[in-house]
Amino acid sequence: MANSRFEYVKSFERENILLPQTHIIIRVDGKGFHKFSDFYNFEKPNDINALNIINLSAMKMMETFPDIILAYGDSDEYSFLLRKNCELFERREFKLITTFASFFSSYYQFYWNAKNSPEDQLKIDRLPTFDARAIVYPNRENIIDYFSWRQVDCHINNLYNTTFWMLVLKGGMTTQEAENRLIGTLSSDKNEILFKEFGINYNNEPEMFKKGTIYVREVNDFPIGKYRENPTIDNLQRILKRNKKSSINKYHCDLIKESFWNDRPYLFI
Amino acid sequence: MANSRFEYVKSFERENILLPQTHIIIRVDGKGFHKFSDFYNFEKPNDINALNIINLSAMKMMETFPDIILAYGDSDEYSFLLRKNCELFERREFKLITTFASFFSSYYQFYWNAKNSPEDQLKIDRLPTFDARAIVYPNRENIIDYFSWRQVDCHINNLYNTTFWMLVLKGGMTTQEAENRLIGTLSSDKNEILFKEFGINYNNEPEMFKKGTIYVREVNDFPIGKYRENPTIDNLQRILKRNKKSSINKYHCDLIKESFWNDRPYLFI
Amino acid sequence: MANSRFEYVKSFERENILLPQTHIIIRVDGKGFHKFSDFYNFEKPNDINALNIINLSAMKMMETFPDIILAYGDSDEYSFLLRKNCELFERREFKLITTFASFFSSYYQFYWNAKNSPEDQLKIDRLPTFDARAIVYPNRENIIDYFSWRQVDCHINNLYNTTFWMLVLKGGMTTQEAENRLIGTLSSDKNEILFKEFGINYNNEPEMFKKGTIYVREVNDFPIGKYRENPTIDNLQRILKRNKKSSINKYHCDLIKESFWNDRPYLFI
Amino acid sequence: MANSRFEYVKSFERENILLPQTHIIIRVDGKGFHKFSDFYNFEKPNDINALNIINLSAMKMMETFPDIILAYGDSDEYSFLLRKNCELFERREFKLITTFASFFSSYYQFYWNAKNSPEDQLKIDRLPTFDARAIVYPNRENIIDYFSWRQVDCHINNLYNTTFWMLVLKGGMTTQEAENRLIGTLSSDKNEILFKEFGINYNNEPEMFKKGTIYVREVNDFPIGKYRENPTIDNLQRILKRNKKSSINKYHCDLIKESFWNDRPYLFI
Repeated sequence: MANSRFEYVKSFERENILLPQTHIIIRVDGKGFHKFSDFYNFEKPNDINALNIINLSAMKMMETFPDIILAYGDSDEYSFLLRKNCELFERREFKLITTFASFFSSYYQFYWNAKNSPEDQLKIDRLPTFDARAIVYPNRENIIDYFSWRQVDCHINNLYNTTFWMLVLKGGMTTQEAENRLIGTLSSDKNEILFKEFGINYNNEPEMFKKGTIYVREVNDFPIGKYRENPTIDNLQRILKRNKKSSINKYHCDLIKESFWNDRPYLFI
Repeated sequence: MANSRFEYVKSFERENILLPQTHIIIRVDGKGFHKFSDFYNFEKPNDINALNIINLSAMKMMETFPDIILAYGDSDEYSFLLRKNCELFERREFKLITTFASFFSSYYQFYWNAKNSPEDQLKIDRLPTFDARAIVYPNRENIIDYFSWRQVDCHINNLYNTTFWMLVLKGGMTTQEAENRLIGTLSSDKNEILFKEFGINYNNEPEMFKKGTIYVREVNDFPIGKYRENPTIDNLQRILKRNKKSSINKYHCDLIKESFWNDRPYLFI
Repeated sequence: MANSRFEYVKSFERENILLPQTHIIIRVDGKGFHKFSDFYNFEKPNDINALNIINLSAMKMMETFPDIILAYGDSDEYSFLLRKNCELFERREFKLITTFASFFSSYYQFYWNAKNSPEDQLKIDRLPTFDARAIVYPNRENIIDYFSWRQVDCHINNLYNTTFWMLVLKGGMTTQEAENRLIGTLSSDKNEILFKEFGINYNNEPEMFKKGTIYVREVNDFPIGKYRENPTIDNLQRILKRNKKSSINKYHCDLIKESFWNDRPYLFI
Repeated sequence: MANSRFEYVKSFERENILLPQTHIIIRVDGKGFHKFSDFYNFEKPNDINALNIINLSAMKMMETFPDIILAYGDSDEYSFLLRKNCELFERREFKLITTFASFFSSYYQFYWNAKNSPEDQLKIDRLPTFDARAIVYPNRENIIDYFSWRQVDCHINNLYNTTFWMLVLKGGMTTQEAENRLIGTLSSDKNEILFKEFGINYNNEPEMFKKGTIYVREVNDFPIGKYRENPTIDNLQRILKRNKKSSINKYHCDLIKESFWNDRPYLFI
């Protein structure tokens, strides 16, 4: 298959291989989901059906790509942590990010239509789409900080949105009035508005809204106590060899506390 | 929204801005379409319904992204040419390629289900997905050569596939026998097999199969004669200003001949 | 030479191949030349000996690397234009820029010591060093604009420096006073200061100071008239084949006027 | 300083920021040193004067750039390890590598002329030049393996060269004959040739030839024992704060043994 005269155009292709022995995080992010949520009449501030659909899509990603060891998402975004020695697509960046964008969009569309009634099926001019980016991190601390960053972001946005929509839906404000009311307010101010004006204790809001959703590929019966006595990589790999069974579990817990990560040392090898 | 302790993780993000004043081509490519076509029982060597669906998806891409001025596709791939001065996503590579992968996958899934009967709807474990890559080319000649490369590839593959499937479907060979039969054969040999053994004149095969499909955003009533008299960029831009109306047209013609490009000088500014 | 256990570290190396069929410009830039010029007592505003040394170094670069077709420099910087089809170091960016930085620094040190008296030889803690960067440009217009940009910069800096140092050396101002005096002044203001206060007509200043220095690899006896009649790349390459002899010539002329470039069409192939 | 019409050309510049919190290694490598060593009549297989000059240059690099914590070199190359939190040039790759290439070339030229007699001064057409590349490594193990890789390379080359030149200088072979003799030989074969034919015990060769040269920025009076009892990063940083004094020391020892690195834990923070 000669093709020779034109084949030179391939020499213009460029490739970025993500640095070996680093953790890759791929974050998919909904495109225009503000308009999307208006178009399909999402409940405010949180639409449980939509969150279930994005969570199902993330779970399906973990089943499809065994290199994903943890996923965290809220609102219209999800971050996937790949294991350090991941060689998926030889770590070629364009393959990784476009594949994740493609699969995630496909799963979301599929689950949306499967979980909604015939009259709520997706329309061609407002399909759910996602971009995706890859970031590499060299060490454990960076990864914990990355997910802490996303979870703090979830918290800040959810507290804002909860207060904002209370002011609009229960308080009778226009969206503009609610926005003005919240300018310059601290978290404590928003908590107080919720409590004093609407009788809502923010702490009692659903964990999924406040903390987002975590899927983690867990090693069954991992002897964490034994590992703590002898915490070396060698020892970890020896234990993992004997504990091949793993399962994907779902949480809405605190990622910022070290204990989440200390209890799962196998995430970092 | 402070977040300060964790925000540093953003400094690990990297970005590639595609070189200004070059033509960007984005090629989407089906993932695992060999298995996909088996799973959904594609007709061999070409499944017209599947080609219609990928073509509809490409057409919809052109409607969605006005920066696309030409699209060429065959089999399970499509290449999109963006205009030289395109500033979509500020030419950020990751945004461009993941958005194209996401939209194209979404359109394909949508059209597939819309154009197929209820029993032929897509299944969760075999959804159509696509990766995408961007390549930048500095000049007119490169672009013509790029599309010529893809069209030659279409021709070579289609002639092979047409002969291969004739040997299997009409000739009673196993796929392994057909493969062995074709090892080392030239185009002329395959033409002869088709003609002598199956009475098929390859030239009479449908143009869409032999040449692929082209969508081009054409300037209506462009005075090509006048432009030929005075072929400068300035002159071209002056004409374009007076000819704002354009339409997207579909062809299955020869891209390798210079005339296709000479007739559409507006593609290169 | 096995080495196998450690060889994997090579897989962390990354490489950037500069886009084919574009013009590469490499700009070397003096590091800390403000201090360097103080240390070696440069004449202000322009030190002819230092300019001669940087010019000799640039000329020697052109002799060493035949792919350089034009060089432009002033003050402590030089920009080198490589021909479009240059394959030096297979267009690997790190090789190109570090080699240029290394050779240019080496030539500068050599010529400095060769052209200065024994008591003015370079000292180990104040050696002339240069960084280097590569930029690729897809078309003729970009290249003309690039060199115009550097020449405008030369002009602006030289007018400023000439006025500033007149105020200090002839006007008796401190450097701080001179700086304050020039804040907010236009070119016309500086011309007026020079003329009214110091009797200097800026137009009569040496061309090398006002315009910088150009080295260009010129094709001898190029039939520019014939080329203008039939200005195609094919024609240009045919003429070049018959005119193999070239020489490197030096100018201090205007690069912003199109005529400089129109007279040397061979620079762009 | 408007410049506006041309300033757009700056938008074509590209920049690579090396990944934060990784160790950067910059390796400078002599260009054409085979010819260089012939031209200046290096002693074979090792020229002590030339090695002293490259070592002086490396030492001067460490004095110039406090971010370098270790340097290793042999023959015509040197690798520099930068501390993990190095922010030199904001980790911009082009600045780092071109600056290292420029300074290293400058120092080498300076020391060569300073340490050689007037008749052996460098000539303009055979100046010592170096390219440079940067590689980033995410963890301690990679760094040890990197320097082990270079030291194994030094050993293999030196054993080969020692044997080769004995065959030529003492054995009366032509270079071609010596090359043929050594094809396919193992290390043990070369050791035997040296011992049996030339009475040389390779183990007694100078350490600098066999092991290369290491410069390391050492923390004075670092309480390594105390650190071993409590080996955390926090503890290390606390100790370092009390031990600010450091000195650059030179070795020709084994880098492959873990003990070299275990004794200097401060290299990895």
